[in-house]
Amino acid sequence: MEREVKLYDTTLRDGAQREGLSLSVEDKLKILHRLDEFGIHYVECGYPASNPKDAELFRRLMEIELRNAVPVAFGATRKALIGADKDKGLEELLRAETPAVCLVGKTWDLHVKRALQTQLDENLFMISDSVEYMKKHGRLVFYDAEHFFDAYKSNPRYALETIRAAVEAGADWVCLCDTNGGTLPWEVAGIIVEVKDEIPVPLGIHAHNDSGCAVANSLLAVKEGVTLVHGTINGYGERCGNADLVAIIPALVLKMGIPAVTMESLASLTELSHYVSEIANVKPDNHQPYVGRNAFAHKGGLHISAVLKDPATYEHIRPELVGNRQRIEVSELSGKSTIILKGRELGRDLSKNPEKVQEILRLVKELEHRGYHFEAADGSFELLMRRVLGMHQVFFRLESFRVIMEKREDGKVETEATVKVHCRGKRIIETAEGNGPVNALDRALRQAIGRAYPELEEIELQDYKVLILNPEKATAAVTRVLIESGDGEKTWGTIGVSENIIEASWQALVDSIEYGLLHKKAKPDA
Amino acid sequence: MEREVKLYDTTLRDGAQREGLSLSVEDKLKILHRLDEFGIHYVECGYPASNPKDAELFRRLMEIELRNAVPVAFGATRKALIGADKDKGLEELLRAETPAVCLVGKTWDLHVKRALQTQLDENLFMISDSVEYMKKHGRLVFYDAEHFFDAYKSNPRYALETIRAAVEAGADWVCLCDTNGGTLPWEVAGIIVEVKDEIPVPLGIHAHNDSGCAVANSLLAVKEGVTLVHGTINGYGERCGNADLVAIIPALVLKMGIPAVTMESLASLTELSHYVSEIANVKPDNHQPYVGRNAFAHKGGLHISAVLKDPATYEHIRPELVGNRQRIEVSELSGKSTIILKGRELGRDLSKNPEKVQEILRLVKELEHRGYHFEAADGSFELLMRRVLGMHQVFFRLESFRVIMEKREDGKVETEATVKVHCRGKRIIETAEGNGPVNALDRALRQAIGRAYPELEEIELQDYKVLILNPEKATAAVTRVLIESGDGEKTWGTIGVSENIIEASWQALVDSIEYGLLHKKAKPDA
Repeated sequence: MEREVKLYDTTLRDGAQREGLSLSVEDKLKILHRLDEFGIHYVECGYPASNPKDAELFRRLMEIELRNAVPVAFGATRKALIGADKDKGLEELLRAETPAVCLVGKTWDLHVKRALQTQLDENLFMISDSVEYMKKHGRLVFYDAEHFFDAYKSNPRYALETIRAAVEAGADWVCLCDTNGGTLPWEVAGIIVEVKDEIPVPLGIHAHNDSGCAVANSLLAVKEGVTLVHGTINGYGERCGNADLVAIIPALVLKMGIPAVTMESLASLTELSHYVSEIANVKPDNHQPYVGRNAFAHKGGLHISAVLKDPATYEHIRPELVGNRQRIEVSELSGKSTIILKGRELGRDLSKNPEKVQEILRLVKELEHRGYHFEAADGSFELLMRRVLGMHQVFFRLESFRVIMEKREDGKVETEATVKVHCRGKRIIETAEGNGPVNALDRALRQAIGRAYPELEEIELQDYKVLILNPEKATAAVTRVLIESGDGEKTWGTIGVSENIIEASWQALVDSIEYGLLHKKAKPDA
Repeated sequence: MEREVKLYDTTLRDGAQREGLSLSVEDKLKILHRLDEFGIHYVECGYPASNPKDAELFRRLMEIELRNAVPVAFGATRKALIGADKDKGLEELLRAETPAVCLVGKTWDLHVKRALQTQLDENLFMISDSVEYMKKHGRLVFYDAEHFFDAYKSNPRYALETIRAAVEAGADWVCLCDTNGGTLPWEVAGIIVEVKDEIPVPLGIHAHNDSGCAVANSLLAVKEGVTLVHGTINGYGERCGNADLVAIIPALVLKMGIPAVTMESLASLTELSHYVSEIANVKPDNHQPYVGRNAFAHKGGLHISAVLKDPATYEHIRPELVGNRQRIEVSELSGKSTIILKGRELGRDLSKNPEKVQEILRLVKELEHRGYHFEAADGSFELLMRRVLGMHQVFFRLESFRVIMEKREDGKVETEATVKVHCRGKRIIETAEGNGPVNALDRALRQAIGRAYPELEEIELQDYKVLILNPEKATAAVTRVLIESGDGEKTWGTIGVSENIIEASWQALVDSIEYGLLHKKAKPDA
């Protein structure tokens, strides 16, 4: 099915509607550059009429050059009963000075009557006037038919009339929007089949995920002939989000034979997804299709032995194609083959060393019995293997630590931690305050060894999870702490288990730092 | 399209494969009971042959009664070249003594050769022998055709032969599995159309989400005639998860006219989703279709004014139908009736006291903004209402507490807590050791006020849960602690929120004890 499909990203406009997401002008420019490098064809940058920050963004845009992406400014059709040249919104849209604009218009008779509170005919004039006005000013015009699928189900004749108004006024593209996200896959496909011959310009799809079908709906639309796909990186968007371009792009390229981006770009998809989530300050979804940390993780012993024989047995695509990688998780249920594979990652061929394999397995089993769980703690597991294989590197040695927490009579809570460590031949004692006991310990330890290891500054704790293992014992239960860390390039998980939550946190913290220093090739202590 | 579709939940088996998810036998029983109440038809409880904890679960299952759900035990077809009656796995499966079993078998020639390393014919015997053996022992047999879609694309003749082997041996249902989750919607639909007339027993669908299409694939399968849908609550599962029943069920009932559950059950869908996420200790996805906190949240001013005129303008279904609610980020009008109802439980008619209702609502809103969450903390909520209504009883007053935790050079960890409280006119100072800081505080407090309140002996902390609210801030994040307590008659939940995990635990602990003493009618202090 080799044909051209264009990608239209709206992370900066519709994606930014996600609750709690707030992007500065700088953030938006960073994302725009990254999308441009990646090979997105059109980037909707904002809604200048409704958002003053976006107007500022468009001013900045005039000073930069993009390699691939065409920036698009978004706006609505003119207000009722005025001339297009009198409309403030359209004026702002022109002032953005982008080569392309996207105009959204009402398609659903319900909306014209309830939301706009105007006549059905006037809405048609609003559409044609606005499109014509933008064309007169030399813009490439995308026309977004808001609520198209709901509109078509309710009043197909009027829905098509609105689109004809846009096309006759010169719209270059018409994008069919499932604004409320409630349309089911066969409805999307069926309606596109019905309408595509009626519309003489190329069609796009804009899907929302309220039914959990946004990706499928977008792909089905392409299957039925649509040649423009709207979406956002990681599916960010209001309510349940927009269609996730990160899931759509690999399906187009790898499964449908549509070269929407180059194979080289595709191989940076995981990076792109994580880059945007970092800027947006949203924790990446470990289970996200294609790019999630666990998207190619294998757990059950049977799965692992099969996957080692042939990855196609349990992987729908090769993870490297999207810049991800296979993860073999270690758990009670997995066995020798997992350990041998992990050894290979460390550069050791353990197939010739069955005693070591046995020793590691025994250790894992014993630790898992005590509540450890190495699936999400690849960092701690690697350190464990290194210890058994004599590949362990020592960066510092803890003598002792002490945490004092006080809730004073005035209600104020104070926490301080003191660590005593040996590092580079010195005994170092440092005390730090923190928001809580673990934060105070983290700070004290970094104070103590930070001079010896400047690499520490790049190592960040990104996630901290606490699980109570036998909660029926309530506050005396065993606590499992998982920490996820990163250095901007990779992420790793570490674990600690103890009856004492602070001791468990300390274990995970120390593993996190040791693993980080090891992979930053810091010079060990001894 | 009114017809019967059965729901088959595999949260306890396939869902438990999710990385980091670990369910105790108690947890699984709790979820099973909830699924049963909700109206799920079949619940796959586990894989007795591969997991000793599951074997224990099946023993416990024999002692309980379910109202709607049929429990299913999961297993694989027999090993190659032995009799079914000699197969350990099938033996364990029978020992589970469930009315129904699910047998998974190889469908894809690649797998038979690479993973099983046996002959194609032997695999057919393995399937028919195993199914026949289970039928001979009176079981309802679900046959899971692993990798069906990949298998059918690669070798349709052999794929169908494997299914025929199962059907001819007596399988009651055949479930088509997209095990690797890579199949696209039109492939699922097209293949089902091709094979459905070839298979004389009812068909099921088991979809994984590796392409982001699991929900759509499941719904399309139903559209094409499948009458059994596999899935998990919240889409939990390995890699990118299984098909999310929480998105599938409302689409079946509300959009496809298939009464898979009653409208009453449907209205508890949000609660079910949150209940399971709480037990699994997975933070709910605020953007989850239908049940997410933001699934019906409106932000843009235009959207809000339209939605207030007519919800259908920007909502694909009415949120109450799935037990969710519209969120408008301006004023909180809802909730009043809940407060009035709660007041009635405390013997107060608040309908005549709107200022108090307002004050409580304002307080709740403020606290929820800071991370409190009263759904699971009825105890803390009642105490909050009592405070506002002047019905608060004081049993003791904290002056201060101090926790000291030390990890000594020999690796030993010691924790002690000192509390200073005022009770019955005395100032009491007590110190206690504990397994961890919270346990030590609990003990010290009980030592201090136990003489004044012998009722305390009957109050037990039964469950203790910790959730990190903004994990991207890692160890400096805000911590929410939930404690469940009981006195043998009733149980109550209390909550604490703080940047400091120990302070959060203390809040929940104090609420737990105050609530307990109040309801044991202990004589207050002042």
